[in-house]
Amino acid sequence: MFEFEIQKKHMHSGARLGTITTSHGRIQTPAFMPVGTQATVKALSPEDLKNCGAEIILGNTYHLYLRPGHKLIEQLGGLHRFMNWDRPILTDSGGYQVFSLNDLARVTEDGVTFRSHLDGSRHLLSPELAIEIQQSLGADIIMTFDEPTPPDADEAQTLQSLELSTRWARRCQEAHTRKGQTLFGIVQGGMFKNLRNESARQIIDLGFKGYAIGGLSVGEEKALMLELAEHTAPLLPENAPRYLMGVGTPDDLIDCVKMGIDMFDCVLPTRNARNGTIYTSEGKLNIRNARHRDSDRPLDPECTCYTCKHYSRAYLRHLYMADEIFAMRLNSLHNTAFFQKWMADIRRAIAEDRPLDWRLPESGENNGG
Amino acid sequence: MFEFEIQKKHMHSGARLGTITTSHGRIQTPAFMPVGTQATVKALSPEDLKNCGAEIILGNTYHLYLRPGHKLIEQLGGLHRFMNWDRPILTDSGGYQVFSLNDLARVTEDGVTFRSHLDGSRHLLSPELAIEIQQSLGADIIMTFDEPTPPDADEAQTLQSLELSTRWARRCQEAHTRKGQTLFGIVQGGMFKNLRNESARQIIDLGFKGYAIGGLSVGEEKALMLELAEHTAPLLPENAPRYLMGVGTPDDLIDCVKMGIDMFDCVLPTRNARNGTIYTSEGKLNIRNARHRDSDRPLDPECTCYTCKHYSRAYLRHLYMADEIFAMRLNSLHNTAFFQKWMADIRRAIAEDRPLDWRLPESGENNGG
Ligand SMILES: [Zn+2]
Ligand SMILES: [Zn+2]
Repeated sequence: MFEFEIQKKHMHSGARLGTITTSHGRIQTPAFMPVGTQATVKALSPEDLKNCGAEIILGNTYHLYLRPGHKLIEQLGGLHRFMNWDRPILTDSGGYQVFSLNDLARVTEDGVTFRSHLDGSRHLLSPELAIEIQQSLGADIIMTFDEPTPPDADEAQTLQSLELSTRWARRCQEAHTRKGQTLFGIVQGGMFKNLRNESARQIIDLGFKGYAIGGLSVGEEKALMLELAEHTAPLLPENAPRYLMGVGTPDDLIDCVKMGIDMFDCVLPTRNARNGTIYTSEGKLNIRNARHRDSDRPLDPECTCYTCKHYSRAYLRHLYMADEIFAMRLNSLHNTAFFQKWMADIRRAIAEDRPLDWRLPESGENNGG
Repeated sequence: MFEFEIQKKHMHSGARLGTITTSHGRIQTPAFMPVGTQATVKALSPEDLKNCGAEIILGNTYHLYLRPGHKLIEQLGGLHRFMNWDRPILTDSGGYQVFSLNDLARVTEDGVTFRSHLDGSRHLLSPELAIEIQQSLGADIIMTFDEPTPPDADEAQTLQSLELSTRWARRCQEAHTRKGQTLFGIVQGGMFKNLRNESARQIIDLGFKGYAIGGLSVGEEKALMLELAEHTAPLLPENAPRYLMGVGTPDDLIDCVKMGIDMFDCVLPTRNARNGTIYTSEGKLNIRNARHRDSDRPLDPECTCYTCKHYSRAYLRHLYMADEIFAMRLNSLHNTAFFQKWMADIRRAIAEDRPLDWRLPESGENNGG
């Protein structure tokens, strides 16, 4: 099943408060999806994710296809059972990873030929295979296979690419047969507003229950990303969820929610956690910093996550400096909880018609502690 | 506080069923202590450890002295609070690590001069400093600082070494002032039974509330280790706990419990877990093995740990092959639970006067699955 209901529109912006209902449960929107690339959100258990408030996670088709293989996961009962996650899952189509992890990927009308980054083996990822993989994985929401336009593509290339993506989107629709699983379309069009219009028109014409904005946050300037997201969001049907792929920072999330975006995903909270970069209500900090050496404070005094309830910055710094695995879990848990709370605060502000006017403070490294 | 009570002696061997009571709670003996070298049992949370049934863990004085420093831990409320573990802790004295991690450690009457394996800085670890560190950490049970005799030492060297250890043990007693913390003595004597007798006599003469057998499981043949443990255990007072340091495999634990040993510690379950070596009721297996690739079975059908309840071998193999951090936690959790259940089974057999006659099966790799 799939239902999207808008509970409330924000008085001060284009933001909407909604719920998506899937056969694995409900997702409150605007939602941030932690990324579980290889059938695990790095360093976290399903219980950790639930305790952080995550209602949906993202899985990566490209990675799971190559390892352990979608047929294996299907044979073992699908991705939910394989990884012991009983809440909604969204899988991407693999298009982005094929290009970002393979310098020599080659595009034809059929699909993309590439070599595995794991063992160099040759593969052809087509729209049909991308759907087959996602059907085997059994996510609640799946994505069309498209060609992400390189950010430096010129207008002619970008047009060609978005038209190919439209043809592939149609092939995805035709290949998609699994019940209880919803296919989203993706708007491309690179850095050109007129081509964003054109792609949106074509993709909406095909008709999907949800729409993503792709090809942003791929290396372009932040201001340009925001400008194009703001241009594209209102082109999308109001009664369908809008998903901005690969975004973003806490401030990006606020900015883009105000444009009417409902769903986000990004590796930022977990990747940063593993680098020691921690998000707090006082700004970012790096736990390696010597100033945390003897600090008895939690990472964030306003956070109620497991990490902040039980551990001091001094302990977390010690674990990090000592290369302890537990550091990865505790940091990832906090950052994931921080992003989920950030979204919950956004949703509450929409519900109460308060302005979405706050930012992440500049740097926690200059505050007390 | 410290109390050791023997509830029952085994009808078929020298094994004893007992409890040690400390101010952080009770420990059922015979007990196996997971090793938390750097203020964390690698990859596991305190809740994980409790769910595995661990009632006491071991901390390493040498490592915590060098990083983050015992003064820091003391300032932050002691090791229990620092690492969020509210059950008993035993700390070793650092003597073993000083030698095993420093080829150039030099022994004088004062103590041991060595260079940090972290930054090359020079240190003198003396009996007094070892006690100071352990008092700052605040473990429930602490150990005397001794010189572990190299396994290839001749009789004259070994005698010299054990006599130095006795003098150091006395200095430890004099330096130890912290209330609610119990100091154990360590019997050395290398590979010589007559010197084991001599060391035991000297250490018992000093008088401790618990006694360890040191200098075994340091590279000698397994049969020799068992022979010397069997020789030494009955030399120790019956009404005090006996602790065999650094032992061992599941079979070693059974063998040594039968000699009347009450406490054990070893990195085996957690280190092996990180190498993919898993202990099961069917024997050891390596999760990297391709035969687990599509296995829907748990690691051990007889295990009720979190890992076995929720995850297939196929998933665990995938996580391991994909270098995922979560693999380390799930494997460590299972192996730790396995060792705790192994001890619980031993305790039950003693309670019910059944023979301690089982072994770990040869290899799980040849059984179904
Ligand atoms: Zn937190
Ligand atoms: Zn288990």
